[in-house]
Amino acid sequence: MGAKIFSEKHQITFYETDVTNTVTPAMLVNMIILASEDQTDSLGVGAKAVADLGIGWVVTQYKMDITRLPKQGETIEVSTQATCYNRYFAFREFWVHDSEGRECVHVESIWVTMNHETRKIVTIPERIIAPSHSEKVKMIPRLSRPKKLTEADQLMTKQYRVRYFDIDGNGHVNNSRYFDWLLDALPMSFLTRHNLTSINIRFENEVQYHHIVTSEATLMTDIPDSIVTKHRITMENGDVATEAECHWEPIINHSAQA
Amino acid sequence: MGAKIFSEKHQITFYETDVTNTVTPAMLVNMIILASEDQTDSLGVGAKAVADLGIGWVVTQYKMDITRLPKQGETIEVSTQATCYNRYFAFREFWVHDSEGRECVHVESIWVTMNHETRKIVTIPERIIAPSHSEKVKMIPRLSRPKKLTEADQLMTKQYRVRYFDIDGNGHVNNSRYFDWLLDALPMSFLTRHNLTSINIRFENEVQYHHIVTSEATLMTDIPDSIVTKHRITMENGDVATEAECHWEPIINHSAQA
Repeated sequence: MGAKIFSEKHQITFYETDVTNTVTPAMLVNMIILASEDQTDSLGVGAKAVADLGIGWVVTQYKMDITRLPKQGETIEVSTQATCYNRYFAFREFWVHDSEGRECVHVESIWVTMNHETRKIVTIPERIIAPSHSEKVKMIPRLSRPKKLTEADQLMTKQYRVRYFDIDGNGHVNNSRYFDWLLDALPMSFLTRHNLTSINIRFENEVQYHHIVTSEATLMTDIPDSIVTKHRITMENGDVATEAECHWEPIINHSAQA
Repeated sequence: MGAKIFSEKHQITFYETDVTNTVTPAMLVNMIILASEDQTDSLGVGAKAVADLGIGWVVTQYKMDITRLPKQGETIEVSTQATCYNRYFAFREFWVHDSEGRECVHVESIWVTMNHETRKIVTIPERIIAPSHSEKVKMIPRLSRPKKLTEADQLMTKQYRVRYFDIDGNGHVNNSRYFDWLLDALPMSFLTRHNLTSINIRFENEVQYHHIVTSEATLMTDIPDSIVTKHRITMENGDVATEAECHWEPIINHSAQA
């Protein structure tokens, strides 16, 4: 009697991929969110039903483990379940499999329900989670915190103004935008030569239309045999919007191998 | 014996829409380009086959006439044909229909083939267009030029840095990005209160990764009974990347009607 699993297929288009024809982390997040929306809609507890209670679901953290990011033209299967929850937190998992059934991505995520008026976190109403057969638990699984940037870190920095088309149908900046801002702070020469193997992202404060945000990134040099970048997005008042930690592996150039 | 028509269906996701749950012009362009890629692929003259000749297709102008932009969740049908061509120019049309078969959008576009090395326009090779049953003509249909900004125009201006994720699998800035830059120059209060009824966009010069571009827009005040905005994207050296002209109609607030 575990949580209900919902799955849907999707063929990856060119406009969901990057210069290497690989799906972008931002678009992958859009695809998994679509699956969770389609699941909750199918169970009668979709965004509209939840909004009728004066609340909305908000993601506070994603931890993505990536075996392989799919390529343009591939048909993937996106699966999700509302694994477990307690009074204030829901733990939802996602999986992306390729057409041969191999797992490409596993995502753990933590969600809260927020009052639309007060923007305060509220107790998760039983009736919006019961149809998912989510397990009620004392403690949901803990996700580690992204490592923090320190004073000593040498930063790569870029600024972004929140655009009209960054705002989604809920009137908020689409979550996927933060992934673009975080990763674009890294040089193209790094991004085209490394595969993302994991990303751990925490959302702290929401940014708004016309805000200017600063995306800061650093490459950690003190961890042997692993390639780790730390990221932070800050607002004009200095508040942290998002923190993230990414792990990478070098792309092996097969043509250069004997 | 007209040109072959190719059609495919697509369900519009939340991440292809804006704050009003309406498909964005940028995403609409992505969808029609996908249809033309799927058509040419199915005819054996897709991007890869064309690249093998050392050339690539480049759009120089789109003219979109919009009856209605579809909404999130709708299943649309995107159709396209390579209507006609001459030595240097190909004229391709697109249609978007809703699930009841009503035309939502009609797009006329002009394409050239460009040499990958020299970036010069070359004669369109017969063998890449013949499978489309495109009609060979002396003159392809003329599309009007977008009205130009003048010295007297009061400009709204925003700047954009070309980002890593703006670059597509061809190594170029995805055409759809120009639509976001053009329209984001207008205030949100205008964009949420008007429907786009047509857009005429000409691409003059290509922008590159890390370029800073300036998007300038003005509302024309000298055309009675119509709402027209003129747009220009310029590069740091002052060259024009793109010019566009948009027509709009006010959104009628039905709840305010008797």
